Amino acid sequence: MNEIKVTLADQLKQKPLAEQLEFGRIFTDHMFIMDYTAGKGWHDARIIPYQPLVLDPAAIVFHYGQTVFEGMKAYETPEGKVRLFRPEKNMQRLNKSNDRLCIPQIDEKLALSAIKKLISIDKEWVPSAEGTSLYIRPFVISTEPYLGVAPSKNYQFIVILAPVGAYYKEGINPVKIAVENQFVRAVAGGTGEAKTAGNYASSLKAQELVADKGYAQVLWLDGLEKKYIEEVGSMNVFFKIDGEIITPALNGSILEGVTRNSVISLLKHWGYPVNERKITMDEVYQAHKNGTLEEAFGSGTAAVISPIGELAWRGENIVINESKTGFVSKQLYGILTGIQTGKEEDPFNWTVEIE
Amino acid sequence: MNEIKVTLADQLKQKPLAEQLEFGRIFTDHMFIMDYTAGKGWHDARIIPYQPLVLDPAAIVFHYGQTVFEGMKAYETPEGKVRLFRPEKNMQRLNKSNDRLCIPQIDEKLALSAIKKLISIDKEWVPSAEGTSLYIRPFVISTEPYLGVAPSKNYQFIVILAPVGAYYKEGINPVKIAVENQFVRAVAGGTGEAKTAGNYASSLKAQELVADKGYAQVLWLDGLEKKYIEEVGSMNVFFKIDGEIITPALNGSILEGVTRNSVISLLKHWGYPVNERKITMDEVYQAHKNGTLEEAFGSGTAAVISPIGELAWRGENIVINESKTGFVSKQLYGILTGIQTGKEEDPFNWTVEIE
Ligand SMILES: Cc1ncc(COP(=O)(O)O)c(C=O)c1O
Ligand SMILES: Cc1ncc(COP(=O)(O)O)c(C=O)c1O
Repeated sequence: MNEIKVTLADQLKQKPLAEQLEFGRIFTDHMFIMDYTAGKGWHDARIIPYQPLVLDPAAIVFHYGQTVFEGMKAYETPEGKVRLFRPEKNMQRLNKSNDRLCIPQIDEKLALSAIKKLISIDKEWVPSAEGTSLYIRPFVISTEPYLGVAPSKNYQFIVILAPVGAYYKEGINPVKIAVENQFVRAVAGGTGEAKTAGNYASSLKAQELVADKGYAQVLWLDGLEKKYIEEVGSMNVFFKIDGEIITPALNGSILEGVTRNSVISLLKHWGYPVNERKITMDEVYQAHKNGTLEEAFGSGTAAVISPIGELAWRGENIVINESKTGFVSKQLYGILTGIQTGKEEDPFNWTVEIE
Repeated sequence: MNEIKVTLADQLKQKPLAEQLEFGRIFTDHMFIMDYTAGKGWHDARIIPYQPLVLDPAAIVFHYGQTVFEGMKAYETPEGKVRLFRPEKNMQRLNKSNDRLCIPQIDEKLALSAIKKLISIDKEWVPSAEGTSLYIRPFVISTEPYLGVAPSKNYQFIVILAPVGAYYKEGINPVKIAVENQFVRAVAGGTGEAKTAGNYASSLKAQELVADKGYAQVLWLDGLEKKYIEEVGSMNVFFKIDGEIITPALNGSILEGVTRNSVISLLKHWGYPVNERKITMDEVYQAHKNGTLEEAFGSGTAAVISPIGELAWRGENIVINESKTGFVSKQLYGILTGIQTGKEEDPFNWTVEIE
């Protein structure tokens, strides 16, 4: 196994105040980096001061987007320890994404120990205020300077850290979501189930158009028939209809969220009937009409649980649970963030302490 | 209009020999670069020595692939002049791609004059051997260091130049193409008609799988029904069936190739019946069976015209024109490259001389 060489920063940056924290604008003092060279494999794992990347303008990542990323968080517990939430799941998904993008596999244990070491070096950056956390962004870029359309021979695996604020300043708050009827995020046979740049690039336009009308995110329908619900912005989505909790089944075009998986486990643990299956927007609309649409929410690392107060679809406004946070959303948010921050019991052994 | 500041390289690189030229591995002495800052617009247009880009690891391009590019060529004429081929078309397409990717529009005249100026500075790099040319790669990257999924506030527009060799060492040669039945490149509502990184990232896996079996490229079918023909690798595609020349109609998921457009104009000019319409793989197969599939070829800046000698589909090998270059392919290749290099008359005024 690769040893991790550490070079500490001479000067440490000023840390932001808790109330200044936003999402993903401020980065810590150090970063992790490891190189891949064809024939040699991954090598030179190192932690260095946070610094710019220096890349040939012909590097494949700029032209053909051969890149993948992950997103996870570290939390401070009441005892001042730092915990990760199911990080091995993110490392597995990273390698699944790598496979789809023709990027060489990364040693998951090494990557995780690099992340832990980096966080322990920058542990003063883990914020402690309610709702704050340290966002962890591992990513791989293709660095070979070559304009042919082919997998790169060289890569860098990089991890950067960003202290982030509470997603909802005043606790969780329902959002308005627009159902997208024109643009498509992903389709079976495409890259939807990988966490890769192009999926997000493709989503910007739809997002921008609805943001102008006051919607927080778009809800994506399937690319084939624009009938089946896929996911919301960068969250998976759940509906509670007549007591049953439904989330779209993984079909190759939906990202397999770690939060989604955790939500399903918790709900089953609590005895709720949970179904991963195809669900059409029409079914949701009918449930709304006949009064059985009880709740809807998104799940993802950034917001954890995001209740949906309103869905705009074909000129109709589907108001859900009187635009209030539903019982299941509230319960999930409380328990999940409680487990993550070590304030609640962790029945599934999901959290991993650092050091 | 922005003035272009020029800083020349102190040391010039050694130029490659014509026979060493490949595609996109060697770059010239200079590059063009221009910055965009929200509120200020595009500014600081400059030509500088070819050099690495220095970017924050959180730059949006690495994470969300907000980037577009173009590809065009400059050719040396027998009189030693340098010509571009329909460059205004590439600039228009660049802005169309920019629009899809939420990237601010670029002044097309300024971009073109920057490209001309850059080439005139590096004109010694335009190769003159038969089949060689100077490949021009304009591209835009999003540089804001921000992990939220949103359009960047800052960008760079960059142009690099690469002398490239003949695509076919011994004249044009038919290639074997595999029809792709599993993976999907693009779908209506996605980014298929934009020239953006994610489309190419998504294609790598399919390409890699067929390359192992001896195929040069994949032929993409539509993402919805996997029935209709879209394009081939990085080329548009044409079929000659019973005297009629057919190419898939632009439908939102196909790139509008400059070569495609030129091929259609030339064929019409010569009196061929040309149809832009939907065409299924089944129609091509039936034509093969009943002996009316006369020719097939791809069109694109890199290869200009690439005859298709064989198509693999559902376990069948569809051999076209006995795997020989057809008459129309040969005629198009000869005339198009003749116009591009100034050896043939240019009836449509397609070429633009530099200086
Ligand atoms: C497209 C998309 N869907 C769903 C999710 C939720 O996944 P997770 O719960 O692992 O954060 C994310 C990201 O975080 C995402 O980007
Ligand atoms: C996907 C794709 N289709 C078609 C083409 C052909 O376009 P053009 O003739 O403008 O080179 C290209 C690129 O060059 C391409 O990348």
